[in-house]
Amino acid sequence: MFSQSDWAIPVIEDDNNGNIQSVIDSKTKPPGSLGKLETLAFQLAKVQTTTDSAEVLHIRQPSMLVFAADHGIARHNVSIAPAEVTQQMVSNFLNGGAAINCFCRLHQVDLTVIDAGMMAPIAAHLAGQLRYIERRVAAGTADMTEQPAMTLSELTRAMEFGVDIAHLHLNEGADVLGFGEMGIGNTSSAAALVCAQLNRSATDIVGRGTGITDEQFARKTHLIQRAVDRTRIQTNQDSVDVQHILASLGGFEIIQMIGAMLATAQRGKIIIVDGFIVSVAALFACVIAPHARQFMVFAHSGAERSHQLVLNELQASPLLQLDLRLGEGTGAVLAVPLLRTAAAFYNEMATFESANVNV
Amino acid sequence: MFSQSDWAIPVIEDDNNGNIQSVIDSKTKPPGSLGKLETLAFQLAKVQTTTDSAEVLHIRQPSMLVFAADHGIARHNVSIAPAEVTQQMVSNFLNGGAAINCFCRLHQVDLTVIDAGMMAPIAAHLAGQLRYIERRVAAGTADMTEQPAMTLSELTRAMEFGVDIAHLHLNEGADVLGFGEMGIGNTSSAAALVCAQLNRSATDIVGRGTGITDEQFARKTHLIQRAVDRTRIQTNQDSVDVQHILASLGGFEIIQMIGAMLATAQRGKIIIVDGFIVSVAALFACVIAPHARQFMVFAHSGAERSHQLVLNELQASPLLQLDLRLGEGTGAVLAVPLLRTAAAFYNEMATFESANVNV
Repeated sequence: MFSQSDWAIPVIEDDNNGNIQSVIDSKTKPPGSLGKLETLAFQLAKVQTTTDSAEVLHIRQPSMLVFAADHGIARHNVSIAPAEVTQQMVSNFLNGGAAINCFCRLHQVDLTVIDAGMMAPIAAHLAGQLRYIERRVAAGTADMTEQPAMTLSELTRAMEFGVDIAHLHLNEGADVLGFGEMGIGNTSSAAALVCAQLNRSATDIVGRGTGITDEQFARKTHLIQRAVDRTRIQTNQDSVDVQHILASLGGFEIIQMIGAMLATAQRGKIIIVDGFIVSVAALFACVIAPHARQFMVFAHSGAERSHQLVLNELQASPLLQLDLRLGEGTGAVLAVPLLRTAAAFYNEMATFESANVNV
Repeated sequence: MFSQSDWAIPVIEDDNNGNIQSVIDSKTKPPGSLGKLETLAFQLAKVQTTTDSAEVLHIRQPSMLVFAADHGIARHNVSIAPAEVTQQMVSNFLNGGAAINCFCRLHQVDLTVIDAGMMAPIAAHLAGQLRYIERRVAAGTADMTEQPAMTLSELTRAMEFGVDIAHLHLNEGADVLGFGEMGIGNTSSAAALVCAQLNRSATDIVGRGTGITDEQFARKTHLIQRAVDRTRIQTNQDSVDVQHILASLGGFEIIQMIGAMLATAQRGKIIIVDGFIVSVAALFACVIAPHARQFMVFAHSGAERSHQLVLNELQASPLLQLDLRLGEGTGAVLAVPLLRTAAAFYNEMATFESANVNV
């Protein structure tokens, strides 16, 4: 599951690029004047005409998958909220009261919340407008500052669960999957993963965030560096492989997202990437299978250096800059109206010829 | 119509700021974590709780007003398209084939196109999903490089027409008015207006745009400077008043937008400002009656210096940066899903207390 050959991800050839660009340029507007929406339509057309043989672009059934899990590092009190907030917020999701619920309802996006490994399961009572799925790998990860966050078999199980979730939704007709997360402590896990993968030090990566004190910030940086150092030492080699990095520093929600993204790419469907943590999952999906990148739409970029670093690594230029820093997939949902707009102009706009407009 | 006292624009007091902020901060999310959506919800709440005594925020019936007109300067061939494209594109609007049609259909935004003074009227046959209104001031403006673009009585008529259009839509129940434009040559008019109002030279303002040659660019800059110089000389005073600037350098679509914006502000409703040209109209609305600014939401900013200058003058930080440069109000329509999202989270999200989440 950790090398490109394990994933039969279609390679979208460039054969059709000229045709797609000429559709876009035939529309009644100066060339390029719809900016990023044109880039988006181009990507959508490349993917969908190849993998679906689509005649028209479609965003028929977008689904948000929000993966929730807990993190051993949270016991060091490095986040703005205590660890029990993961479960409280997931209960809030189930009751329809969180931002992600409002956003999905408004924009007619299906919402599924996955317990990927929270401290304790939540009785999945009636989940209102959303679907709640348990794919618990364990009751939170171990404390990565002292030991690997998970075993290799937990890592594999998390990947498989993610794959499973993606197939479930795609089999039911979802044509776009958006990704979001909830998990107190998961910015620490994501930061550590980036440090290890991109050979950076924690001081390069760890964001100040908001709401934590100077003392918390110093401790957070120190703890993340310790986890990264431990990972390098324990694997006893200069270049640590991706599997060991993920097991050592990952979170169950992050790993499940990687598996789900790779399965989505294998099925030739569009992946919407939310903020920093989801971008880190996207980075690892592309480290494992670079062709997964073709299917990814990046929704939102914030000001944090660490997120920019990951986006640069992925050569991604996100659609929105709204200073969001909530997670939950809120940025990804807001990209859906833009995807729909890109599809609509590509499908529906008149051409210079049909409209008798002078070029 | 050209001084603040002519407009009974409500002043939104700050009395309620604390209440509004505490509603926003009671929602189940870290304070400020919805970024610009929080700023937007705050503005919306300030406006609507005051002028509507609204219990919940609403974007019930957003309407786009797209004002079209022709410009005398177009005969100098300074645009990427010939002057007849104004009419061809308006025909395209009527047939539902332009970008603004697709965008409005998709996002369920009403669309009205106004002939504010095109070279010739278009037979207003069945206009499909949109409404077409004739408020022709004249058959295009005069060539501002040689004489005032319009007379003072044309200026007043254009303002009155704009006021009229806004009231018509607000009387029918529109609660948000978005503004867009179509008019070959109107970037020249807008640039000249900015030069005259902000005391800049044409070389500071005139954008390279895209698609015009070096020679066209040099001529455009020269012609705009000539129009601005003529305005200063003919009025024979150091500080030219706004009425003379507008008559000398304006376009009928720009003036009608100013009138419509001021009427919208007077009615206490939200104004969505599109790109550069609409921002210039917004600037003049605020020069005439500064309180109009309270009602303005800025949708999109491009990279052009001139637009940034106007936005800075208005202390505006637009929602979207999608490299759009089409006009038609396309950016303004894309702000509507964000306005709806801001209203939805403000109205619907659970509070920390109601959801039992630890702050």
